Amino acid sequence: MSATTTIDVVGMTCGHCVSAVTEELSALPGVTDVSVDLVAGGTSPVTVRSEQPLDDAAVAAAVDEAGYELVR
Amino acid sequence: MSATTTIDVVGMTCGHCVSAVTEELSALPGVTDVSVDLVAGGTSPVTVRSEQPLDDAAVAAAVDEAGYELVR
Repeated sequence: MSATTTIDVVGMTCGHCVSAVTEELSALPGVTDVSVDLVAGGTSPVTVRSEQPLDDAAVAAAVDEAGYELVR
Repeated sequence: MSATTTIDVVGMTCGHCVSAVTEELSALPGVTDVSVDLVAGGTSPVTVRSEQPLDDAAVAAAVDEAGYELVR
């Protein structure tokens, strides 16, 4: 079983930001891949692939932990 | 003996960028303090304090290593 979660993240400006978000999301249980389409200073779509559907709160917490804001 | 070197660095956009530049410059021999005044997406003044005058090429190489451009 697998799931794909797509979120929008604001506030990322550079590759370091992408790395921070990717690292936090990759640490969630069952996550197999994180892909960020950086829109510097804008809203960046982030696709997270996982073995099972992800908990919304856990995803939001991971983005927050990285220092960015999740657009719901 | 101490020296202060002020340079201008372009291309930094966020705190991660500041960290990367600070880390590289701090690794230069004799450097005691690095202070970055971030102008996101613009030209950011960086002040480097050191025990002795720094080699210009070494400073430029450190900024380049961090992934940014030094304005001469």
